[in-house]
Amino acid sequence: MSHELTTGPLWTGDYYNEGSGKEGLDKLKEECGVFGVFKHPDAASLSYYGLHALQHRGEESAGMCVSDGNEFHYHRGMGLVKEVFTKDLMQTLTGDISIGHVRYSTSGDSKLTNAQPLVFKYRDGDLAVATNGNIVNAPTIRRELEQGGSIFQTTSDTEVIAHLIARSPKGLVEAAKDAFQRIVGGYAFLIMTNDKLLVASDPHGLRPLTMGKLGDAYLFASETCALETIGAELIRDIEPGELLVLDADGLHEDRFDHHKHRKALCAMEYIYFARPDSDMNGANQHAARKRMGSRMAIESFVDADLVTGVPDSSISAAIGYAEQTGIPYELGMIKNKYTGRTFIQPSQELREQGVKMKLSAVRRVVEGKRVVMIDDSIVRGTTSRRIVNMLRDAGATEVHVRITSPPFKNPCFYGIDTPDSRELIASQLSVEEICREINADSLSFLSPDGLITSIQGDNQDDYKGGLCLACFDNDYPTRLDFGGEEKFGCSC
Amino acid sequence: MSHELTTGPLWTGDYYNEGSGKEGLDKLKEECGVFGVFKHPDAASLSYYGLHALQHRGEESAGMCVSDGNEFHYHRGMGLVKEVFTKDLMQTLTGDISIGHVRYSTSGDSKLTNAQPLVFKYRDGDLAVATNGNIVNAPTIRRELEQGGSIFQTTSDTEVIAHLIARSPKGLVEAAKDAFQRIVGGYAFLIMTNDKLLVASDPHGLRPLTMGKLGDAYLFASETCALETIGAELIRDIEPGELLVLDADGLHEDRFDHHKHRKALCAMEYIYFARPDSDMNGANQHAARKRMGSRMAIESFVDADLVTGVPDSSISAAIGYAEQTGIPYELGMIKNKYTGRTFIQPSQELREQGVKMKLSAVRRVVEGKRVVMIDDSIVRGTTSRRIVNMLRDAGATEVHVRITSPPFKNPCFYGIDTPDSRELIASQLSVEEICREINADSLSFLSPDGLITSIQGDNQDDYKGGLCLACFDNDYPTRLDFGGEEKFGCSC
Amino acid sequence: MSHELTTGPLWTGDYYNEGSGKEGLDKLKEECGVFGVFKHPDAASLSYYGLHALQHRGEESAGMCVSDGNEFHYHRGMGLVKEVFTKDLMQTLTGDISIGHVRYSTSGDSKLTNAQPLVFKYRDGDLAVATNGNIVNAPTIRRELEQGGSIFQTTSDTEVIAHLIARSPKGLVEAAKDAFQRIVGGYAFLIMTNDKLLVASDPHGLRPLTMGKLGDAYLFASETCALETIGAELIRDIEPGELLVLDADGLHEDRFDHHKHRKALCAMEYIYFARPDSDMNGANQHAARKRMGSRMAIESFVDADLVTGVPDSSISAAIGYAEQTGIPYELGMIKNKYTGRTFIQPSQELREQGVKMKLSAVRRVVEGKRVVMIDDSIVRGTTSRRIVNMLRDAGATEVHVRITSPPFKNPCFYGIDTPDSRELIASQLSVEEICREINADSLSFLSPDGLITSIQGDNQDDYKGGLCLACFDNDYPTRLDFGGEEKFGCSC
Amino acid sequence: MSHELTTGPLWTGDYYNEGSGKEGLDKLKEECGVFGVFKHPDAASLSYYGLHALQHRGEESAGMCVSDGNEFHYHRGMGLVKEVFTKDLMQTLTGDISIGHVRYSTSGDSKLTNAQPLVFKYRDGDLAVATNGNIVNAPTIRRELEQGGSIFQTTSDTEVIAHLIARSPKGLVEAAKDAFQRIVGGYAFLIMTNDKLLVASDPHGLRPLTMGKLGDAYLFASETCALETIGAELIRDIEPGELLVLDADGLHEDRFDHHKHRKALCAMEYIYFARPDSDMNGANQHAARKRMGSRMAIESFVDADLVTGVPDSSISAAIGYAEQTGIPYELGMIKNKYTGRTFIQPSQELREQGVKMKLSAVRRVVEGKRVVMIDDSIVRGTTSRRIVNMLRDAGATEVHVRITSPPFKNPCFYGIDTPDSRELIASQLSVEEICREINADSLSFLSPDGLITSIQGDNQDDYKGGLCLACFDNDYPTRLDFGGEEKFGCSC
Repeated sequence: MSHELTTGPLWTGDYYNEGSGKEGLDKLKEECGVFGVFKHPDAASLSYYGLHALQHRGEESAGMCVSDGNEFHYHRGMGLVKEVFTKDLMQTLTGDISIGHVRYSTSGDSKLTNAQPLVFKYRDGDLAVATNGNIVNAPTIRRELEQGGSIFQTTSDTEVIAHLIARSPKGLVEAAKDAFQRIVGGYAFLIMTNDKLLVASDPHGLRPLTMGKLGDAYLFASETCALETIGAELIRDIEPGELLVLDADGLHEDRFDHHKHRKALCAMEYIYFARPDSDMNGANQHAARKRMGSRMAIESFVDADLVTGVPDSSISAAIGYAEQTGIPYELGMIKNKYTGRTFIQPSQELREQGVKMKLSAVRRVVEGKRVVMIDDSIVRGTTSRRIVNMLRDAGATEVHVRITSPPFKNPCFYGIDTPDSRELIASQLSVEEICREINADSLSFLSPDGLITSIQGDNQDDYKGGLCLACFDNDYPTRLDFGGEEKFGCSC
Repeated sequence: MSHELTTGPLWTGDYYNEGSGKEGLDKLKEECGVFGVFKHPDAASLSYYGLHALQHRGEESAGMCVSDGNEFHYHRGMGLVKEVFTKDLMQTLTGDISIGHVRYSTSGDSKLTNAQPLVFKYRDGDLAVATNGNIVNAPTIRRELEQGGSIFQTTSDTEVIAHLIARSPKGLVEAAKDAFQRIVGGYAFLIMTNDKLLVASDPHGLRPLTMGKLGDAYLFASETCALETIGAELIRDIEPGELLVLDADGLHEDRFDHHKHRKALCAMEYIYFARPDSDMNGANQHAARKRMGSRMAIESFVDADLVTGVPDSSISAAIGYAEQTGIPYELGMIKNKYTGRTFIQPSQELREQGVKMKLSAVRRVVEGKRVVMIDDSIVRGTTSRRIVNMLRDAGATEVHVRITSPPFKNPCFYGIDTPDSRELIASQLSVEEICREINADSLSFLSPDGLITSIQGDNQDDYKGGLCLACFDNDYPTRLDFGGEEKFGCSC
Repeated sequence: MSHELTTGPLWTGDYYNEGSGKEGLDKLKEECGVFGVFKHPDAASLSYYGLHALQHRGEESAGMCVSDGNEFHYHRGMGLVKEVFTKDLMQTLTGDISIGHVRYSTSGDSKLTNAQPLVFKYRDGDLAVATNGNIVNAPTIRRELEQGGSIFQTTSDTEVIAHLIARSPKGLVEAAKDAFQRIVGGYAFLIMTNDKLLVASDPHGLRPLTMGKLGDAYLFASETCALETIGAELIRDIEPGELLVLDADGLHEDRFDHHKHRKALCAMEYIYFARPDSDMNGANQHAARKRMGSRMAIESFVDADLVTGVPDSSISAAIGYAEQTGIPYELGMIKNKYTGRTFIQPSQELREQGVKMKLSAVRRVVEGKRVVMIDDSIVRGTTSRRIVNMLRDAGATEVHVRITSPPFKNPCFYGIDTPDSRELIASQLSVEEICREINADSLSFLSPDGLITSIQGDNQDDYKGGLCLACFDNDYPTRLDFGGEEKFGCSC
Repeated sequence: MSHELTTGPLWTGDYYNEGSGKEGLDKLKEECGVFGVFKHPDAASLSYYGLHALQHRGEESAGMCVSDGNEFHYHRGMGLVKEVFTKDLMQTLTGDISIGHVRYSTSGDSKLTNAQPLVFKYRDGDLAVATNGNIVNAPTIRRELEQGGSIFQTTSDTEVIAHLIARSPKGLVEAAKDAFQRIVGGYAFLIMTNDKLLVASDPHGLRPLTMGKLGDAYLFASETCALETIGAELIRDIEPGELLVLDADGLHEDRFDHHKHRKALCAMEYIYFARPDSDMNGANQHAARKRMGSRMAIESFVDADLVTGVPDSSISAAIGYAEQTGIPYELGMIKNKYTGRTFIQPSQELREQGVKMKLSAVRRVVEGKRVVMIDDSIVRGTTSRRIVNMLRDAGATEVHVRITSPPFKNPCFYGIDTPDSRELIASQLSVEEICREINADSLSFLSPDGLITSIQGDNQDDYKGGLCLACFDNDYPTRLDFGGEEKFGCSC
C-alpha cells in the first residue's frame, strides 16, 4: 500500500459523523460521476458545467482529460469542480473530445493518485479512463497482471482495464470488448484515446449512464441533470452490455455482451443518490421520491401534527407523505448550506454545550408537536438516533420515523461504499429493536413492492422493475465468488 | 475615494445576474450579520459557529475581534467564515469577549478595508465596532468631523460612531448615548472595548437583534438561528432605543432614547432575508412564509397542475400555497448548491447554446403543465422574466406568477441595497404591464394587509404589525432630509 | 494594544536566531524602503521593480498606493513584493502617481495593519503616507492627539503625520511643514494626495533618500539601486530638511527646516544595510566596504592561510582585506539562498545532530587552516560565537575575527531595531572579553576614523564625514528627551 | 504525448531569457538532485534539509517517498522544497527509509506527472524510483515494453527501470542488475521498496553520487553539500558500475557491471552546476573554480582596471583571476536574489526604457573602467552579448570576456539539457567571430588541459582526469547508436 498525500484541505468531517471515529460512517457515500464529450469545440467548458451538475456524486476530487486530436491535456485535483479548475487552467485544456470525473472514495484512500481520469501511454498512443462503479473480480485480474510483470500506479480497479487493453494483441475496440467480457461488476466506463471515445455499461446496467446531443456533439453523463444543465437534448440511456464507439466516422452502436441479462439499475440511485431533477429509466427522481412518500403514507399512516424530511434527500418524500395524509409539511429541521470541507468541527466541549453542526432542528416549529420524520435509509442507526433526539430536545412530543426504503441489510459490491454486514443495524436487529435503538415512537420501512411501484410510476417493467435490490433482498445480479477475494466498495 | 484591493477570489457573478452588466443587480442584496459574546472562554469558537449560522446575511467578508481583557486579537478577510478563519488562526484569537461580522457590500465597494469589525485605538484603549444597517445622516456628520480634523480609514459609516465616541469628553457609555442620539437610521450595533460590550438597536428597531445566554455568558445575534446553532437559550429581542452595557458587573439594561417610537422591523426580513428557522418578534420565518403562501392562495387563486417555488427563499410559501389550494407542490426548478464565488461563468456562446447556471427547470416535472410559480419579490423584473421563460422552454404550458409581497416601489434607507426608484419595475409599471414584461400568464402580488397578517400569525401587534413597509408604502419611520445628502444602501 | 492577525505564512525564523527565544535578535533588522513615482503612466509597474530592488530593506510586508488623479487604488500584504503583487492585482493599480513601501518590523508587531502605505480619508480627499525611519517624539504627540479625540488605526508612528496634517487649518503644504517641524527623528517621508506628491528628509538626513528621472517622470527611492534597476537617471540625494512638492506645475524644491544642522547619514547603511551596488552621498557601497576591509588589514593585520567573509554583507570587505594582505580570499562558508520565510526549521534533536540551516562552513576549504573571518558588526555576540565554532568544527585551526565597524554600544533611535544596551555585548564587555566570549583566537574592530575614511573614499566632508555614529560614539544628532517616553526601533 | 497541467505558479522566466521566445534557452539547465536515507527515524526531515541543500540542481519540482516498513507515504509538487513540503505534510511522511528528488525539466515538459520519485505497485509490493541523469537507449527499450503490453504513466525514462524490474522473473536485486546492464547512459539511481534501498551509478560514473553516515543511518546525495548540511560524515563517492543494496542486514556493496570502464564524471559539474562548497572526486568546487580563474589568467592575461564575475557561478573564478593578476576584483554586476518563479517580468515597453531584471551592472564601479568579465560558459551567446552590452551601457570602456571552459560544441546525452548543435554558437563560429558577436573587446576560452589541471588540483588521475569532456571534445564515453532514436536531455 502506498499513499500519495495531498496538500489541499482534507475533509474535516460530515454532520453524519459527528461522534468518535468508532461510530464511523453512517451514511452511504455517494459514488462517482462521469461526463464525456465527443467533438465539441468547447469540450472542456461543457465538462466543467456537466461535472458541476454531477458534483453531488463526488465531492472529493475532480478531473478531466481533453484531447485535441494529437495530445492529451489533463488535470486532476482534490476538491470541488470549481476549486480544482481555475480560469487559467481551463484555457489550457484545449480539444474537442474529453472525459471527466468527480469522485468519492472509500475512507482512508483519499488521494490524488486515485483521482480520475487515469491517463496512460501505451503502444498506440495515449489512453484515458474514467469510471463509476466497481469491478468485483479486479483483485483476481490484478494479481494475474502483476505476475505477468505489470506495474500499477494506483489502487483503483479502473487501471485493470487499461492493462487488459494494452496487453491485448488486438485493436482498441476488440481489446476493449475482451476486457469488458473479462471483468465482472457494476460500472459505467468512458475510455478515450487521442481520437476516439468508448462508452460502456455493465451487462446488468447497474450504474446509470445516459447519452445526449448538443448540435452535432455527443455527450455522456451519469445523470440527465448534467445534460439539462448544458442545454443538451437527451437521447437515451446506455443499454446494459453496450459498447458505443465514437470515432472520425461518428457513433457506432456495438455491444460487448450479447447475452440477455436482467436489467438491474441500482435502486439507491432513486432512493438517495441521484439529483431530484434527474430522470433514470424514464422516471423523474423527485416524482419517484414523492411517490415513495405517498406510498409510505398508505402503508404506514400515523396521526401527527406535522411531517418533516431530513434534508436534502428526503424533502420530496416528506411532501408526498404530507399530500397523501393531509398532515402539513413543515420545516422541522434545517441544513446549513455553507458547511463543507474546510469547515472547522466544534470541540467536544462545545458539542456538549449544544453547538450544532450542519443540521439543526427548528424549535418553534416542532415544539409541543407530534412529528413524522421522513428519511431515506438507515445504515448504522447512529444518525437516526441523533436526529430523533435533536427533535425531542427541540420539544417534539412524539417522533415517528418513516424510512422510504426497505431495511438495508447487505453490502453493495457495485460501487457504493457500505459498511460490513455486522455494522448494518437492519441485519442485526428487528424493526422493533431498531425503533428502540433510535429512540423513535414508531418506525416503519417501505416495503420492497412499495419501493418498486413508486419507482416505476406508470412505467411497467419486467422482473423487479429492472432494479438491483440486493442490499435489501440479497439477490445479487452477478457472480461474486472469485477465489475468496471478492471486493466491494467503489473502485472509481 | 480609495479602494483597497483584495487578492482573494472575487465574486464571479450570481445566477440572478447572468446577463450583461447593464441589467445589473436584480435581487436585493442581503445585509450584514453581527454576533457578540460576553464572557465565554471559547468566545472565538462560538463566534465562528454563530457567524457561520448567519452566513446567508453576508457572504463577502467575515471578521471577528476578541478581547482577552488586555488586548484585542482580530482578523478580517474576504470570503466565507470557513474560508477566512483557519484552524491556526482560530487558536490565536484568545479571549472571552468578542464581536463578529459577516458582510455583503454594495457593488464596487468590495474591499477588505471596509470589512468589519472596525478596530481603533483611542484615548482609553482599544475600540471595535460591528454593525448591521445604515446611518442616514452619516455623510453630514462625517463632513463635520472631517472639518474638525478627523481622518477616516474606511468609507463605512460605522466609523462615524467611533469618532463621535473618541471626540466626546464624557465616559464611554455617556459618549455612546450621545452618539446614538446624534445618528439617524436603522441599525444594530455591537461596540467592544478591552473589557466592555455595548449593544444598541435604533429607536424603531428596524434591524433585528436578539439576546441569548449560554451558561453565564451573554450572546447577541442578528437572528435566533445563530443562538440555536450554538445551543444557547433565547432570552429576548433587543428593544428599539435600548443600549445594553456589559461589563465586570454584568448586564446593565439602559436606553439611549427614551421617546416612544413606533416599532418598525424590516418586513423584508420575513419575506426574503432571514433564515427560515429564525424567529423574529416571536414569529418563525418558515411559518410566516407558509402563511404568506396560504394567504396568497386565498387572495389570488388560479387553477393549475402544480405549484413550485423559486429556491431557496420561496419554497415555504409555495408549500403553503399548495396546502391551501390542494394543487400539488412539485420540484419545478432546482438550484445547484455548489455554485459560488469561484465558479466560472459560461461564455456568451455557451449561454446561447443553453448552458444553465445556478438555477435550472426540471423538464419532466413541468412539461405540459400549468405552473404556479411562487417568488418573494420583483425588483427589476429581469430575473422573473428569465425564470418564466426557463419554465416555458422546459414545456410549461402556463406560468402564473405569485409574489408573496406587495409591489416593491421605494428604495430602502436602512441597510438593504436597492436600486434607484427608476429601476424598480413596480414604480414604473402597472401590475398588468409587469405581467406582460415578465411574460407570465398571470401575476399577483400579496396585499399589504395579507402580508401583515401572515407575519403576525396569532400575534397581535399595534400599528402595521410593528413593521417597516416603506419599500411598499413609502412611509419611512425616520427623517431622511439632511441637507440633500441622504444616503441609502448598507453602511455595514 | 491590538493585533490584526495575518493568514499569510509567518517568518519561521532566521539563521541568526537558531536558538531559543531567549537569545533573541542577534542581527540588526534592516529598516524599511520607500519608492515614489510622479507622473509616469506605468507608476505601479515601476514601483513593483523599484520595491523589488529595495526588497533587502524589508522582507515582511509590501504595499503600494497609486492615484489616477481621482481616486486611490492600493494593496498591502505580508510577504515579498513578488508574493504580494500578482499579475491580476497589478492590472487594477492604475494611475501615474504612486508611493510604495517594503517593511521590516520590530518583533511581535508583524501585522498587516501596520503595513504601509497608510491610507486615509480626510477633509480634502485621500491621503497616503509611506516612511522609512523613526519619530522619537511620536508617543508624546500621539497622546496629545488622542486627548483631542483622534482615533488611530495602527501602532505605527507614521499615522501621527496624517493626523497633524488633517487637524491643521492650513493647506496641505503648509500643514505638512508644520507637522515636520513638530516631529523629531530620522526619516524619509513620501506623502501622496490624489494629485500631489510630497517628499521629505529629516533635518539631519539620517535616512537615505534619492531622486531620479525617467523621461519626464520623477522617481524617489531609498537607494540608488532602485533607480538603476528601472533605468532611471540619478539626479541627486534629498537634502536634510528638504520638502519637495510635486504637483500639476512640476517639482517645487522647498524646505520645512531652514536651520543649518550637521549632516548625519546612518553609518550602518554603509556597513551593513544598503545593497552593495547602491551609492549614498556619492560613495558606492561595495567600494566603501572593500576599503573598510583594506583599512582593517592595515589597522589589524594577522598572518593566516585564508580570508573569508560572512555572507552576504561581508564579502566585499573580505576581498578588500585579502587584496591588501595578499592572503587568499576563500569561500570558507556558504549561505543557502533558498532559505526564507516558509522554510521549516530543524527540530532541536536534528540541530544537535548537526543539521545546519542557512549558513554552513566549507570543510575542505577551512580544514587545517588559519582563518581570518570578516564580519560587519557584533550585536549580542551569539551569532559570532556560533560562526566561529562552526568554522572550528569544520577544522579551522585558528579563527581571527575582524569586524568592519567599531564596537556597537548604543541603541538607535532613528529606525534601526536594536536591542537594549544591556544586551549589546560591546556595552558590557571589553574587546578581550568579547574575544573570549565568541571563542575567537583574536578579535579587532575597525576604528571610528578608519570607518569614516573608508566611507569617504576620496570625498572630503565636514564633521565626522556627515555620518551618524551614535551607535558607536553615543553622539545622537537630535534631542531624545520628551518626558520620559522616548521611543526607539522602527516606526515604519 | 499528454500533459498533466499544474495549478501551481509556473516559471515566468529567467534573466538569461529576457528576450523573445526565439532566443530561447541560453543557459544550461541544471539537472536533478537525489537524496536517500536508510534507517533514520527522521528520514523525511533529513530529506527535507538534504533536498534543500540540493535545490540549485532543480527548482521546478520536489518530491519524496518515505517507507515505514509497511507502506509508502509520498508527496510531489511543483516548486521549491520549502514550498512543496509544509509542516502539516511533513508530519504525515513517517518512516525511516526515504528517497527524494529535486528536478529541472526540459522546456515544455513542466508537469507534475513527471515529478519524482515515481511510485509503482508491482507483484512484490511498492516500488519508488528517483534518478539524476539520462538513459540513452530508453526509447528503444520503451518501445519494446509497449509492444509487450506495458503502459506508462509518465514521459520520464525513469519509468523504464521499474518496468524492467517488474517484468523480470528474478528477485529484486538480480532483476535490478539485469535492468542496469540493459540501459545505457549517465545516471545516479535510488530505488526503494517497502524495506530496501538500492543505489546505482552508471558504468562511467557520469553523474555524481556520494555516501555518508549519520549515526547508524546511511545517506546518499548528489553532492556532499547535502551531507555537510545535515551534519553527516562523508564516507565516499559511489563508484562507477556499483549497485549498493541496503536491507535489514545493512549495506551490501555489490556491482552490476564488472568491466573496467574509464571514469568520466561530467566536467560541467565543476564548471557550473555543483554548489561551490561541494567536493567531487576529492576536489572542492570553489577551489577548482578559483584554479580555473588563475589558470585562465596565465593562459590569457589582459591588462585591465578590474575583474568581475557573472554571479553566482563565476565569482570564485573571478577571484582566482584577480589574485593571479593583481587586478582588483570588483562587484561589477549584481544579481537580485529575490527574483524567482512568481516574479512578474517587465513589459516590452518598460524593458526598452531600461528596466532591468535579475542582473544589473554597478555603474559607479565599472564607469570609465577596463573590465575583465569572467563567465563559465557560452551556450548560444545571447546572454553574453547582453551582459557585455549592459557593462558598456554602465560606462565600461573595454570588456574582455574570459570563459573558464573550452568552447561548448556538442550536445550532452547524459542529463544536461542542451540545445541542438546548430544553436551552440561555438559549433558554428570561430572564437574571433564569437567575440564580435558578443561585442567583446577580447574573448578567450580555457584550454582543455587547463580545465583538467584546474579540476585535478594536486590529485593525479588517469585518462583526462576521470572526466567526461564530450561537450567540448566530442568523445562520448558510451554508445549512442540505438536505431536512430537516440535521446538527449534529462530523463529525470
